[in-house]
Amino acid sequence: MLRLYDNRLSGNGYKPRLLLGHLGRAYERVEIDILKGESRTPEFLARNPNGRIPVLELEDGTCLAESNAILFYLAEGSRFLPDTPLGRAQALQWLCFEQYNHEPNIAVARHWLQHIEMTEAQRAQIPARQEGGRAALAVMERHLTETPWFVGEAMSIADIALYAYTHVAGEGGFDLAAYPAVSAWLARVAAEPGHVPMDPAPVGVVAPPA
Amino acid sequence: MLRLYDNRLSGNGYKPRLLLGHLGRAYERVEIDILKGESRTPEFLARNPNGRIPVLELEDGTCLAESNAILFYLAEGSRFLPDTPLGRAQALQWLCFEQYNHEPNIAVARHWLQHIEMTEAQRAQIPARQEGGRAALAVMERHLTETPWFVGEAMSIADIALYAYTHVAGEGGFDLAAYPAVSAWLARVAAEPGHVPMDPAPVGVVAPPA
Repeated sequence: MLRLYDNRLSGNGYKPRLLLGHLGRAYERVEIDILKGESRTPEFLARNPNGRIPVLELEDGTCLAESNAILFYLAEGSRFLPDTPLGRAQALQWLCFEQYNHEPNIAVARHWLQHIEMTEAQRAQIPARQEGGRAALAVMERHLTETPWFVGEAMSIADIALYAYTHVAGEGGFDLAAYPAVSAWLARVAAEPGHVPMDPAPVGVVAPPA
Repeated sequence: MLRLYDNRLSGNGYKPRLLLGHLGRAYERVEIDILKGESRTPEFLARNPNGRIPVLELEDGTCLAESNAILFYLAEGSRFLPDTPLGRAQALQWLCFEQYNHEPNIAVARHWLQHIEMTEAQRAQIPARQEGGRAALAVMERHLTETPWFVGEAMSIADIALYAYTHVAGEGGFDLAAYPAVSAWLARVAAEPGHVPMDPAPVGVVAPPA
C-alpha cells in the first residue's frame, strides 16, 4: 500500500491527500511533526535528503518527494493529467508558478502568522510576502476570468496544486473577496465529487469509499 | 519555428537554450531586457501574465512559460526525459527542488550581487540566501556521491535544470570547491556532445549544427 509521510497543517501534504481522494486510492498516512524536527531525523532524511514533507513511499519502498512531483506521478493515466504534451506542459507551468510565486508567499505568510513564534527577520518580511502573494492571486484572477479551470475543460492537478494553499490564504492575511473569479473557482473545486477537506486530516490507513 | 523570449544573463533562459542545443532544434531567440522592464509591458504580459522570461512561443502562437515546464515539453519523446512514470516523477522532483530550494537562493544571490544595485532589505537577506544555497548544494552533493546523474543512467532535464545556475554559483558567492561531487558532475554535463555555453547567448535565429 502507498504510504504518505505528511503533516496535517501542510497544504503541500494536502495536495496528494486531495488527489488520492479523487482517485479513490487507499493509502497509509503517517503524521510527521515538522515543528518538533521529525522531518530532519536521520531516518526521515534517508527518505528525503531535503528534509521536507510530503514524501510518498511506494509499495517497493522507493520514496518520492516534492508535492507537485507526487501529484504528477499519481495522476499519470488518470483524468487529472492532460493527455497531450502541451496540456501536460501547461499543467506543469502552473505547478511551477505555484512553487515559485504562490507557495513561498501565501503558504509562508500563513505558516509564520499561524504556526510559529516569528523572529524579527521574519516579521520584517511579512509585507513583502503579502505583496508577492497578492501578485500571485492577481495572475490567477486574470486567468480564471477567462476559463473555469487552469488547464483544459476539467479539474486537473494544476487546480489541485493551487487549491491547497489558496483556500486557506485568509490565514495568511489575504482577502479572497478581492478575487471573485478565484473565489468562484475555489467553490467549483470543493464541489467536485470525491473532494476531501484539508482539516481534519485522516489518521492511519485511508480506505477508498465503498 | 519555435521562438524563445529570453534574457542572456538568465539561467532560467539558459535551460531551454541548453536543451535545444542537445536536441539540435532550430529556434529564434528574442532578447528581453528585464532590467529595463521589457518583461512587464502589456505586449509581454499577453504572452506570460506572470511577467517573466523565458517564454516559448510555439509555431501556432501558443505561449508556454516557466523554464522547467518548457524543458519538460521540449524533452517529451527524447532521451532527456525518462520513459517510465517513476523516472519522470523523479526528474520532476529535482525540477521542483531546483525552483524551490536552489534558484531562490543561488540565482537570487547571484542576481543581486552581480546585476543590480541592492536595496538595504536585499543586502540584509544575502546571508540567509547563501545559507539556503549551501543547503541546496549539500543535498546535491549527497545525491551525486551515489550516482553520476540526477535520475537514471544518463543526462536528463533534471541535470540541465540544475546545471543552469549551479555552474555560475560562484557569482553568487558560493565556493564550489567545497562540493567535489557537484564539481565533477558540472564537468560531466559540460563534456556532453551538443553542449552550448550560457555566455555568449546566441543572437536571432539559432540553427542546428549541420
